[in-house]
Amino acid sequence: MEELKNIKVALLGSGTVGTGVYKLIERQREELPHKVGAGLTVSKVLVRDKNKKREGIDPSVLTDQWEDIITDDEIQIVVEVMGGIEPARTYITEALQAGKNVVTANKDLMAVHGGELLDIASHNGCDLLFEASVAGGIPIIRPLKQCLAGNYISEAMGIVNGTTNFILTKMTHEGMEFDEALALATELGYAEADPTADIEGYDAGRKMAIMASIAFNSRVTFDDVYTEGITNITAKDIKYAEAMGCTIKLLGVAKNTESGIEVRVHPMLIPSDHPLATVNDSFNAVFVHGDAVDDAMFYGRGAGEFPTASAVMGDIIDVARNIQFYCTGRIHCTCYKDLPIKKITEIESKYFMRLLVDDKPGVLARIADTLGKNEVSIAQVIQKNKVNDMAELVVITDLVLEQNFADALVEIKGMEHTREISTVIRVY
Amino acid sequence: MEELKNIKVALLGSGTVGTGVYKLIERQREELPHKVGAGLTVSKVLVRDKNKKREGIDPSVLTDQWEDIITDDEIQIVVEVMGGIEPARTYITEALQAGKNVVTANKDLMAVHGGELLDIASHNGCDLLFEASVAGGIPIIRPLKQCLAGNYISEAMGIVNGTTNFILTKMTHEGMEFDEALALATELGYAEADPTADIEGYDAGRKMAIMASIAFNSRVTFDDVYTEGITNITAKDIKYAEAMGCTIKLLGVAKNTESGIEVRVHPMLIPSDHPLATVNDSFNAVFVHGDAVDDAMFYGRGAGEFPTASAVMGDIIDVARNIQFYCTGRIHCTCYKDLPIKKITEIESKYFMRLLVDDKPGVLARIADTLGKNEVSIAQVIQKNKVNDMAELVVITDLVLEQNFADALVEIKGMEHTREISTVIRVY
Repeated sequence: MEELKNIKVALLGSGTVGTGVYKLIERQREELPHKVGAGLTVSKVLVRDKNKKREGIDPSVLTDQWEDIITDDEIQIVVEVMGGIEPARTYITEALQAGKNVVTANKDLMAVHGGELLDIASHNGCDLLFEASVAGGIPIIRPLKQCLAGNYISEAMGIVNGTTNFILTKMTHEGMEFDEALALATELGYAEADPTADIEGYDAGRKMAIMASIAFNSRVTFDDVYTEGITNITAKDIKYAEAMGCTIKLLGVAKNTESGIEVRVHPMLIPSDHPLATVNDSFNAVFVHGDAVDDAMFYGRGAGEFPTASAVMGDIIDVARNIQFYCTGRIHCTCYKDLPIKKITEIESKYFMRLLVDDKPGVLARIADTLGKNEVSIAQVIQKNKVNDMAELVVITDLVLEQNFADALVEIKGMEHTREISTVIRVY
Repeated sequence: MEELKNIKVALLGSGTVGTGVYKLIERQREELPHKVGAGLTVSKVLVRDKNKKREGIDPSVLTDQWEDIITDDEIQIVVEVMGGIEPARTYITEALQAGKNVVTANKDLMAVHGGELLDIASHNGCDLLFEASVAGGIPIIRPLKQCLAGNYISEAMGIVNGTTNFILTKMTHEGMEFDEALALATELGYAEADPTADIEGYDAGRKMAIMASIAFNSRVTFDDVYTEGITNITAKDIKYAEAMGCTIKLLGVAKNTESGIEVRVHPMLIPSDHPLATVNDSFNAVFVHGDAVDDAMFYGRGAGEFPTASAVMGDIIDVARNIQFYCTGRIHCTCYKDLPIKKITEIESKYFMRLLVDDKPGVLARIADTLGKNEVSIAQVIQKNKVNDMAELVVITDLVLEQNFADALVEIKGMEHTREISTVIRVY
C-alpha cells in the first residue's frame, strides 16, 4: 500500500472556534484517512502571543508570524478563525494568491468582502468555503449551493442569532425584562462583553447578507440589510403578542421578489404554531422556500465551540477531498445575477403598534384618520387598560408600505394627545 | 468565448418523479450554465410504451430500448427513477460499468444493494448519488457525508414516511380512526393503491437503513431493520397519549451504541414539546445528534413530484460539476467500518401497554408479578374505565429489554383473566 498522504493545515487564531477545530482534527485522526483518503495535520497555528500556554494545543506548532505560514509551501489549507476584517482579509487574500485553499468562519468579512474574496479564489483555482459563517453548526450553505441548486429560492427566513433568541426565550417563558435576560445571557456566556452586534441585529444582518447572496444567486452585502434590534422589546409586548396567539422573535427575512431583493432583520410577531416559533434558547433555524422543494427548515446550534468547529471541519474535509481529486475551486461564487436590492421604505409590512394617548373623545378617530391619510389601513384596534387619564391602544395594520407607515408615525408622534409610542413591531 | 459544453442525461422512467426532473431541467435551462459551467439536456427517456403521450416531454427523446441508452457514449448521467429492484439494479450496474454516472431515487434498491452498487461506482470512478432516496426533498445525505463529516453521529431519528404521518396527524387532530384516515390519504393521493409498504413501516425502514449506513459509516441493509407499522393504532391510544402529554408518531430510530447499531421503525409516544411532535401532515423531519454539532434537525417534504425532483436535480448538478472538473467518484461509499447490528430483542425500550382484564381482585397483582418476574419494572399503572365486568388498564414500563417484555407479554396474554391486549407502543 502506498504511503498515506498528509495534508497540512494552518489555523489562524486559537480562540474558542480555533481550539474546537484543533480538537476535532485530533478526535477524527483515525477516521480522516477513510473519509478523505489522506491524513490531516495542523502544522501551524497563528497566535498573538506564542508563549501563552493553550490547553490541548502542541506548543511547537504555535507561531506569531504570518510569514511562517504564507511561505510554507506544504500548507494547503488555511483556516481563518480570528474574526474581524483586518488582518483576516489580507491573510485570506494572500493565502488564495499563493494557491492555498481557505476555510473561514468570518461572517463580518464575508458579508462585506465575500464577492471580492471569492473572485480571488476563482482566479487561483482555490476553494474558499465558509459554512460556519452562517448559523454556526447548521448545514445551510452547502444545502443551498448543492442540494437545492435545482430550485429558484424565493425566501429564506430565520432565527440566526442565538444570543437574542436566548434573551427573547427568557422574556417569553419566564417573564423577564430585556435587561435582566441580557444580564443572564452574559453570565452564561451567551452574550459577549459588548453585546451590541447581537442585540442590535448586526450579527444576524451579516448572516442574512451571506445567505441571501447564495439563495438568490446575486450579491447582497451587509450595507444592503436593514437591521433593527430587540432592545425596545418589553415583557408587556410579549404578553400582548401571546394574547394574539403570537411569539416575538428576532427574524432575518430575505425575499426574492419581482421588483428586487428584500433583506432585513427585525423583531417580528409570528404565529405560535409556526415552526420557527418553537425554536428556543440559543438554537437557530433557517426556513427556506424553493419552487421545487417547497418549504424546508434547518435547525441546530448557531454558535459555540464545537458546533461552529463542526461546520469548519465539514469544509476542511471537503477541501481535502478536492485536493485529493485535483478539483479545488470546484464550486465557485454562485452570484451570477445582479438583482436590484429594495430599500426598506419600499417594502410592505404589517405592523403592531402600542401607544399611550390622552383618554379623551376623538383621539382614536384622529389617529385612525392620520393612518388613513397615509394609506395605512387598519386591521384591528384594541383599547387596552386605562391608566389615570391615559388610554393604551394597540393598533394592527394590514400590509402597508414601510414609508407610509413611517410617515404616519411621525405625524402621530407629533399629535397633541399622543403621550408615548411604546412599541412598533412588524407582524408576519 | 468557447462554445458551451452540453452534458447529456438519460432518464429511466417517466412517472411522477421522472416528469418532475424533466420539467426542472427545462425550468433551469438558463441557470444551469452559470451553476455548472455547462448545459444539461435530457437526450433519452426510457419508457415502457413510447407511443403513449407524455405531457411536457418531447416525444422524440422517448425510447423503450435500454440498448439505446447504454450504447450512447454521449450520455454521461443516467437518472434512475423507475423504482423497484429489477431491472433498475441491472441498468445501474451496466451504466456504471460503462463509465456513466448515476443518480437514483430508488430506496428499495439502495437499502438492499447500496453497498454493492457503490463499490461498482468506485471501481469505475463514477458518481452514484441518491439524495432523493431518503426523505425526498430534504437535504440529508449530503449534510451527513459532507457538512457533518467531522462528527461522530450517535443518533439519527426521524419521521421519514409522509403517508403514515398524514394518517397519524388526521387521527390526532380530527379524531379519525385508522381506516378512515387511510381512506382519506388514498383519496388525496398520499397513499398508493397498495399502501402496505407505507403503513407497515417498510418504506421508512428502507430509508433508515440508508441513513444509518451513512450516519455511522457502517453498512446497514433493510434486513437489519426491525419494522412495525401503524395499523394497530387507534384513536383511543392517541387520546391516552395526549392525556400523558405525548403524541404518537411513526419514528425511525437509528443509534450507534457501544454494543452495536440499533435500527428500527415503530410507532412511538413522544413528548408533545419535542420538535418532531409538531411535524405534521405529509412533512418529514430528521433529527441528528453528533458529538460536535450537538442536535440538528432537517425538515421538509419527504415525497411528491417536485420535492423529490429537487433532490434528484441537486445530485445531477453535483455530478455535472464533477464532470466539469474531472473528479467524478469524488465522494465514494463512506461505510468503512463493520459494526455489529443489534437484534431488536437486545434493545432496551420503554413501553405503553393498554389491556382489558376481568374486573376481579388480584388480577392487577398477578400482572405486576408477571412483569416483575421477567425483569420488567413498572413506571406507572393507570386503571381506566370499567366496562361491564372488565377493567381497562394502562401500564407504562421503565426502560426494559425488549426480549424480557416480549416474554412477559406472552405470559400475560395467556392468563385466565386477560381479555385483550389492546395496544403495545414504545415510549420515547
